[in-house]
Amino acid sequence: MVQAALRSGAASRRAVFEVFARRLPGARRYGVVAGTGRVLDALERFRFGEEELAFLRDNRVVDDPTLDFLASYRFSGRVYGYREGECYFPGSPIMTVEGTFAEAVLLETLILSIFNHDCAIATAASRMVHAAGERPLIEMGSRRTHEMAALSAARAAYLAGFAATSNLMAGRVYGLPTTGTAAHAFTLLHDSEEQAFEAQLAALGTGTTLLVDTYDVAQAVRTAVELAGPELGAVRLDSGDLTEAAHEVRAQLDALGAHRTRILVTSDLDEHAIAALAAAPVDGYGVGTSLVTGSGSPTAALVYKLVAREDASGVMRPVAKKSVGKPSRGGRKEAFRELDENGTAVAELVLTSGTAPDGARPLQAELVRDGEIVGRESLADARARHRRAFAELPAVAHQLSRGDVALPTVFD
Amino acid sequence: MVQAALRSGAASRRAVFEVFARRLPGARRYGVVAGTGRVLDALERFRFGEEELAFLRDNRVVDDPTLDFLASYRFSGRVYGYREGECYFPGSPIMTVEGTFAEAVLLETLILSIFNHDCAIATAASRMVHAAGERPLIEMGSRRTHEMAALSAARAAYLAGFAATSNLMAGRVYGLPTTGTAAHAFTLLHDSEEQAFEAQLAALGTGTTLLVDTYDVAQAVRTAVELAGPELGAVRLDSGDLTEAAHEVRAQLDALGAHRTRILVTSDLDEHAIAALAAAPVDGYGVGTSLVTGSGSPTAALVYKLVAREDASGVMRPVAKKSVGKPSRGGRKEAFRELDENGTAVAELVLTSGTAPDGARPLQAELVRDGEIVGRESLADARARHRRAFAELPAVAHQLSRGDVALPTVFD
Repeated sequence: MVQAALRSGAASRRAVFEVFARRLPGARRYGVVAGTGRVLDALERFRFGEEELAFLRDNRVVDDPTLDFLASYRFSGRVYGYREGECYFPGSPIMTVEGTFAEAVLLETLILSIFNHDCAIATAASRMVHAAGERPLIEMGSRRTHEMAALSAARAAYLAGFAATSNLMAGRVYGLPTTGTAAHAFTLLHDSEEQAFEAQLAALGTGTTLLVDTYDVAQAVRTAVELAGPELGAVRLDSGDLTEAAHEVRAQLDALGAHRTRILVTSDLDEHAIAALAAAPVDGYGVGTSLVTGSGSPTAALVYKLVAREDASGVMRPVAKKSVGKPSRGGRKEAFRELDENGTAVAELVLTSGTAPDGARPLQAELVRDGEIVGRESLADARARHRRAFAELPAVAHQLSRGDVALPTVFD
Repeated sequence: MVQAALRSGAASRRAVFEVFARRLPGARRYGVVAGTGRVLDALERFRFGEEELAFLRDNRVVDDPTLDFLASYRFSGRVYGYREGECYFPGSPIMTVEGTFAEAVLLETLILSIFNHDCAIATAASRMVHAAGERPLIEMGSRRTHEMAALSAARAAYLAGFAATSNLMAGRVYGLPTTGTAAHAFTLLHDSEEQAFEAQLAALGTGTTLLVDTYDVAQAVRTAVELAGPELGAVRLDSGDLTEAAHEVRAQLDALGAHRTRILVTSDLDEHAIAALAAAPVDGYGVGTSLVTGSGSPTAALVYKLVAREDASGVMRPVAKKSVGKPSRGGRKEAFRELDENGTAVAELVLTSGTAPDGARPLQAELVRDGEIVGRESLADARARHRRAFAELPAVAHQLSRGDVALPTVFD
């Protein structure tokens, strides 16, 4: 595309691309914007180095003028977008990229890859956080997804409200709180469960979490409290009927005087399983597979579409294709969240020319100005924003069932 | 775990871990081993550098003896496994890792991340390849998954029989055939569809593929053949009822004399949609979202379990936990595929002590010997192996419906 546009001269036309979702996969009630910070970092680094150019040249993927264009590539345009942690709905323009056609079209795969992954994970994570109420959630899914996706998944989960991750690289790279766990292998390694618990307590202290379902749960809990005393930090359950097991273990711990020993549960939990455990005496959840795979919706269905571009006479024109079943709306959009007098969101306004009512909250911020990143913020800020953005949604957003989105998107 | 095991002395016990799936997600008939080559590359590079050690030290994640152990970490054990492209079934030990407990337990997340991703993608890809018959498939899903997972997905798809990828990095890194496409944005960029087609044909020649569903398909096909002549390489359809559209476009192309112009289709295709297009005049498929998300099963449910370890007296002992619903079988396994007199597979034999019948094909190869990689092979070899392994399966393996696995796994 770039080669053909360079040749026809259209490559240098000013263009506007928007990132939005036509629908929310999984019939979710809302989406969560995540990945903006990663997009900005990636955009800043996006260059074609000697290795890349040699590959394109040697394999005749593109011609010499295109190679020259790529060799000097540096995004010089503007980017606006929803802030990370914000909620979004079908049609929300979560990112707007303005530049020449050639410089902006090249970013499609980079931008969509990051958003489609990170928004899918953050959206699933937000539902789990709501289902868990005040109880903390630990992200433990690294081994269930691609090794680099795991790092981004931990970041997205934290942004949406998870308390910690078991991914140490995410601790190092993003400063996330980390926490670990002992696996069944650790118990099986030792000649008895008692020896395994002794070894763990000796190394990590009585505040540690002992895994109690390798052999017999009741026996393991007895052994654990005998060895650690009532100061034992927590026990973990990873199999069976977790509701029933949690009640039994709680009763047993209390009978042994270990009233403050917490019960952590894991084992293929998703937001529905977490919600179902609300009445069980559980103190925290570890979530793996369903978190890193977006709990049934591993990609966010976000697209990157040309919505306006310069014509031959230099005038900006809205554009949109007419494909059956995949309509799009031309023109650069401004987005606002309309709130009622109680501060509850009532509509997502996506406007090409109209003006928003007083009090409607503007959703787009400047992120890149003439190629320079100006919209960086901390993950803590994004996390706090998500808490606020979720709290602002109407009660229907809290429903985990498949259904209509929580807010109507109003176009002008 | 490592810290506690170093302290108890159990860290240096010889241990055997196995990678296997308890079930095939999505009620698939078979799984495809993919990722072995990536595991070997990652294993060779797996070290704890100064940055990683500083993070662990400064945050008091582990104690000093553990930091010393990690600083000098280098896997010195042995690895055996199924060859890439081979098929697998529940219980198949697709990788066996032998070493000290500490050196082997550290590899769990690395090994599982790679296999859980790559096997999920390759398994979905293999089903699509079978559904497509002789028609080529192009992997176009990069923008629907994490940016680094995209690279591995392209590799896994090629291994399973895809013809090419749109991911140029996969071309550079893995030597995959690459091919591109023009998006609707390219047509919308120009002041008319005719100008867009002219620009593309001028830059890429008449052998290119023109996207014909931006406005009106029949008009676009007419314009395309007028401009390119009957030598036009292909047209692409990306919306609507693809069966109906393919028949209409084929008739129109033939009427215009463009008998050799091919029809490529895209638009949320999965193996079922591909199979449904078997009778339509389609010449190739581009697959995105469903390929990179494993077509409903984005992770392969593979686990990494301790199956044997040294006891206090130095004797190797099989071990297995007793958890409800998550049984595992202790002991190091040997695996064979049993074939009938016609060469059709009839069973997966997974043996801890028994001997395999004559003619049963051994499935495990030596991959790492005393820390040195000895089992590398080319992606072309893995791709050829998958073709043979799939051809060997009974006809039930060809069924796309949910159901029983194609081969029973027989344990001794």
